[in-house]
Amino acid sequence: MSQLLRVQNFCVSSDGIAAGRNQRLESPFGDIDHHERLFAWAGATAGWSHRTAPGGSRGLDDYFTRDFENHIGAEIMGRNKFGPQRGPWPDHEWRGWWGDEPPFHTPVFVMTHHERPSFTLSDTTFHFVGGDPATVLDQARRAARGKDVRLGGGVTTIHGFLEADLVDTLHVVVAPVEFGSGLKLWESPDELLERFHLEVVPSPSGVTHHLFWRK
Amino acid sequence: MSQLLRVQNFCVSSDGIAAGRNQRLESPFGDIDHHERLFAWAGATAGWSHRTAPGGSRGLDDYFTRDFENHIGAEIMGRNKFGPQRGPWPDHEWRGWWGDEPPFHTPVFVMTHHERPSFTLSDTTFHFVGGDPATVLDQARRAARGKDVRLGGGVTTIHGFLEADLVDTLHVVVAPVEFGSGLKLWESPDELLERFHLEVVPSPSGVTHHLFWRK
Repeated sequence: MSQLLRVQNFCVSSDGIAAGRNQRLESPFGDIDHHERLFAWAGATAGWSHRTAPGGSRGLDDYFTRDFENHIGAEIMGRNKFGPQRGPWPDHEWRGWWGDEPPFHTPVFVMTHHERPSFTLSDTTFHFVGGDPATVLDQARRAARGKDVRLGGGVTTIHGFLEADLVDTLHVVVAPVEFGSGLKLWESPDELLERFHLEVVPSPSGVTHHLFWRK
Repeated sequence: MSQLLRVQNFCVSSDGIAAGRNQRLESPFGDIDHHERLFAWAGATAGWSHRTAPGGSRGLDDYFTRDFENHIGAEIMGRNKFGPQRGPWPDHEWRGWWGDEPPFHTPVFVMTHHERPSFTLSDTTFHFVGGDPATVLDQARRAARGKDVRLGGGVTTIHGFLEADLVDTLHVVVAPVEFGSGLKLWESPDELLERFHLEVVPSPSGVTHHLFWRK
């Protein structure tokens, strides 16, 4: 089996927006209100990786949250998913949004033009890498030891890998909320139909799962 | 997290039938024609464990075939799933339907009143155990080392564990074929609604996934 590059549980509004502009420390999703409405479906499931109390649904949505780690050996993310800083690192105190127990449990490759030493939190190690998408994917595949690689986002990073035609599957969750302006994944899912199969699966929770795989 | 008992990818016809009567060596599913129509949806997916050639769909159905091994540490099956023999074992030559590479990759507990030594094929070890469902589940949970236990079927075995109220989740796939007579899982999925939540998810492939989890 080849090692796939997979986008998983990537959430957008009904108008295709994944985050607001002007991301900053006190507002990781920038200038949009109620960004939590993108993720409420996941938080309700038993398999949600941030769940602290028992319970949660074990229906359709749970298959997607449980699949987050399934056969994944590494993640690639853009620098803006890792943190709100721009330009050279002022220091190395920022260690991501996720506290001492990041939900990745694998090597994570953060794409940045600015060097920084790797560091480890629990069973997640963050590496900071330059280069184009194909070069970074090569590094992540080696680190994944035969398993697949997750492409974690954000929007700009996903666009870069789509332009380079490196993405094998995408699972995009369209939530029933409209934001109007922000960082758009797409104007319409139809933009991907030339290169991908698509299944559209409505969930009882109100979100619609979009499952793309390479033709 | 507790160790769940999960029924996964269990396939029935639109009239609730999982197999015909009169199972025998040359007819593992007994007296029904076209039993393969129960499983065609799975064979079409990239994640199907018996797949030998590359390819296959990566849409909704693939989440279910890929989930087959996800966080599973042991399987329990009825003797009739293991083989066509009845009564005392004539000898120990029969080693299951699955050849030298069974798709389980964990300990498997075969429920039988007739003793037989354990044996190993590749990374699957078959144990032959008596006792009631609760006793067998205890054994399987210990062998699963913290992971969940799959209840593999067939119908009689699932009924036994449902009657003992030991099943936590069921994924039942209803295929668009009618058999008329045979071994029935249910007259209607509604029979389980007193104790389980249910989500019904139609797949583009034509099957309908029924996802139950304990209330």
